[in-house]
Amino acid sequence: MIEGYKSVEALLNSDYEVLLVAATAGYIKPVERLINSGKVKLQEGIHEVKAQDLVSMGSFQTNDSMLAVARMKTETPPIIGNGPVLVLDEIRDPGNMGTMIRTADWFGITQIVASPGCVDFYNPKVISATMGSFCNVKISYCDLSQFLTGIKEPVYGAFLNGKPIDSFEFDPNSVLVIGNESGGISDAVAAVIKNRVKIPGKGKAESLNASVAAGILLYAASISHATKVNNHTFGGQ
Amino acid sequence: MIEGYKSVEALLNSDYEVLLVAATAGYIKPVERLINSGKVKLQEGIHEVKAQDLVSMGSFQTNDSMLAVARMKTETPPIIGNGPVLVLDEIRDPGNMGTMIRTADWFGITQIVASPGCVDFYNPKVISATMGSFCNVKISYCDLSQFLTGIKEPVYGAFLNGKPIDSFEFDPNSVLVIGNESGGISDAVAAVIKNRVKIPGKGKAESLNASVAAGILLYAASISHATKVNNHTFGGQ
Repeated sequence: MIEGYKSVEALLNSDYEVLLVAATAGYIKPVERLINSGKVKLQEGIHEVKAQDLVSMGSFQTNDSMLAVARMKTETPPIIGNGPVLVLDEIRDPGNMGTMIRTADWFGITQIVASPGCVDFYNPKVISATMGSFCNVKISYCDLSQFLTGIKEPVYGAFLNGKPIDSFEFDPNSVLVIGNESGGISDAVAAVIKNRVKIPGKGKAESLNASVAAGILLYAASISHATKVNNHTFGGQ
Repeated sequence: MIEGYKSVEALLNSDYEVLLVAATAGYIKPVERLINSGKVKLQEGIHEVKAQDLVSMGSFQTNDSMLAVARMKTETPPIIGNGPVLVLDEIRDPGNMGTMIRTADWFGITQIVASPGCVDFYNPKVISATMGSFCNVKISYCDLSQFLTGIKEPVYGAFLNGKPIDSFEFDPNSVLVIGNESGGISDAVAAVIKNRVKIPGKGKAESLNASVAAGILLYAASISHATKVNNHTFGGQ
């Protein structure tokens, strides 16, 4: 179930199989326009409902626009080696999970790998926090230490005691690991990470918020690629 | 009112004037230890209460540890030119506001300037999201366009259409502006910002979360200083 205008709009423009949309009177026409532009066929059609029906059907405390029901995608094994990959170890807060998916999408990362203890991708608060980016990424849940042991791409993890992040030259197919909000990367996963990356800080805060740390890691990896491509392909500037 | 162990711990180690602490039985001894280590004098003492009293006195949905009442600090004009300054334009979400304060503290920024439309610094959700960093920063609320017009330090603002952030060399006394969650930097403030900074992305997301954007901006400014200091003082590496 996908709630709110922004998320349903993204859904109707995606390759998800959408079963039905329930919308308030004022939103019926916008939904019809979205459906026509996206060439979607709704198996169960569009239903006009009241705002309080949206609230009682869904999980939001308020929703005066719409919700949709779509079929979950079948999970497939992660695709590695086709750009950077974001790996999430025990992310428990749905807002953080959604924000990290949105950030990954911003930097063009389409593959996310999550430990089985992470919040569910289809949790309504996760979907909402992605601001539509849930349609642009693929997520695979699996045992992370097994997964990381089995790949040849370089793995970088965010730690409080690693080497400064700006001293790394990130591989274009970097595998970037972010750990749990309070405990960081778990021991079993840390044991198979070769590159321990630290975001240098000189203030008094003990740590960064997990989403913020992920954003900085993804940014640092993205500019490192850009420089590399620049140097190697165009001779540098 | 400051709720939860982490925040009260930071409070008791700070220069805030604390009036009282209410704690559940199991937390009385830890509070006494904190008070002795911090050399705090509580005007109204420590009170043993039940967890449900903490919930009914405070704003948290659960709180089984403690809360404290402290005197708010008198607001003073911002101090500029003593390291980077974070400027917040109409930040409405308390979680974002608190996370940005925590991030500023991580990067050693102690001065924050906020527009009058930002969430209140002492909002319990702001305090909670700072993870104790509310004790390490000073915030001043004022009219931002007036403030920015009156300073000589270089001002950088995060926009969706600026120049790529990694092409800037940030001044050690940079003034860094982050805008509202949905609308970005307001027109009146944008009009007085010379350096429009963009976080380059190549994915499909329309924007980044405001806290994540702030984290990347603060990080980029911090490594730019580091490089500068390195180059100028030690001849570069």
